[in-house]
Amino acid sequence: MKILAIDSSGLVASVALYEEGQLLGEYTLNTKLTHSETLLPMIENLMKISGTEKNAIDAICVAEGPGSFTGLRIGVATAKGLGLALGKPVIGVPTVEAMAYNYYDSEALVVPMMDARRNQVYGGAFQFANAEQVENLLFVDGNGKGLQAFVETDALPAEMLVQKAAALVKEGKAKQIIFLGDGVQPNTGSIALCDVPYQIAPAPLSRQRAAHIAQVGESLLKNGVNTSAADMKPNYLRPSQAERERAEKMGEA
Amino acid sequence: MKILAIDSSGLVASVALYEEGQLLGEYTLNTKLTHSETLLPMIENLMKISGTEKNAIDAICVAEGPGSFTGLRIGVATAKGLGLALGKPVIGVPTVEAMAYNYYDSEALVVPMMDARRNQVYGGAFQFANAEQVENLLFVDGNGKGLQAFVETDALPAEMLVQKAAALVKEGKAKQIIFLGDGVQPNTGSIALCDVPYQIAPAPLSRQRAAHIAQVGESLLKNGVNTSAADMKPNYLRPSQAERERAEKMGEA
Repeated sequence: MKILAIDSSGLVASVALYEEGQLLGEYTLNTKLTHSETLLPMIENLMKISGTEKNAIDAICVAEGPGSFTGLRIGVATAKGLGLALGKPVIGVPTVEAMAYNYYDSEALVVPMMDARRNQVYGGAFQFANAEQVENLLFVDGNGKGLQAFVETDALPAEMLVQKAAALVKEGKAKQIIFLGDGVQPNTGSIALCDVPYQIAPAPLSRQRAAHIAQVGESLLKNGVNTSAADMKPNYLRPSQAERERAEKMGEA
Repeated sequence: MKILAIDSSGLVASVALYEEGQLLGEYTLNTKLTHSETLLPMIENLMKISGTEKNAIDAICVAEGPGSFTGLRIGVATAKGLGLALGKPVIGVPTVEAMAYNYYDSEALVVPMMDARRNQVYGGAFQFANAEQVENLLFVDGNGKGLQAFVETDALPAEMLVQKAAALVKEGKAKQIIFLGDGVQPNTGSIALCDVPYQIAPAPLSRQRAAHIAQVGESLLKNGVNTSAADMKPNYLRPSQAERERAEKMGEA
């Protein structure tokens, strides 16, 4: 099963081709350019250089959110357009959880955080575990490994996420925390207050990668998830600025 | 300092743009296509889509080997050509050690292995450590983290590398081994004989990434390494097939 994966939920735009546990190719950009300018040219170039025909794609996996509204819309619209045209399923993969896969099977508590503006991050706290030992893991793969969510993905102030993660380490759930994502840089002050051992992921292990969207998406597909292009929905988690402003206006009126 | 990084030492071709601890972009292909067909188009596309002028590159970092003779020649020749034309340094980064950075700061014993044909792998056994606690670490970075080489990179039978790594775990150096690289697949039989806890890296964390060549190269540059395009040399580790055949002929004559 050949998967085309897309993640444009944050500052990074990333696309990947994946087949049966093999990463065939991946293209990631982390510039100030808007995803609307870069995403389709990246997909086209990756398909062309790798000699992949569009009809050879069996499924499209896309970061479903949370994340930047504009970024999510561009990624999800692109995935749905391709899925509709090719008649293939479009599988949404949770952004924050997929970011944890930068530290696949680490013993640490993995804390991805995306900058959500308004003094918040989209983040959570996760640990890899073995399905034989721990129940209700997310995205259990062929190795029996999956994610245990100690703090489920939410929009919250960075200092609150740091405190929750530190409390988990104090309870003995892990020996250290790994912070990653584009929410780290704007919140180094909050992270510096962390009073348990932690590290900040280096650049190559810090951002969204479509390879991880494909990796998690493949687990979902093998577990029977099968969403049509029409039915796949992004998960914004918070109302958009336009919706908030409209609600405020309605309240005033 | 803006770095262009190249790794074509194995089956994968990978290029990246990196600047001051930030990954600006990365393009990786893992197909049967020869690197001579893909490497330059990937560099060109990455530079174009990211809006990077060639003159903005301050240094070129390239996987110096060991690895495929043809792959190394293509990668090193490309790096030297660019370095010479742009008048910028070309820094060689050891392939196997850079692969360990897929598991940056893991507590496990990280064992990269590249398929070296002739029943051998290019591999080694490494662990991340803190320069304050352990002497003679390789590539110490801004976080004070570097690599401790328990088994230095060499060409050796996979079963011998597995045994050496298992012995280190038995000595208490680590709790488990992580095997990664394109040498894993052809040697699953030898790995299955490993009698200590181990895991095999999933695809997104298993192969060469130019992002890691850039990450290690940046540490080298900041520590004063500065090789000209003319002086940079690949490290083949073993004589090539042509050289072996010539030596055999000379011996017979």
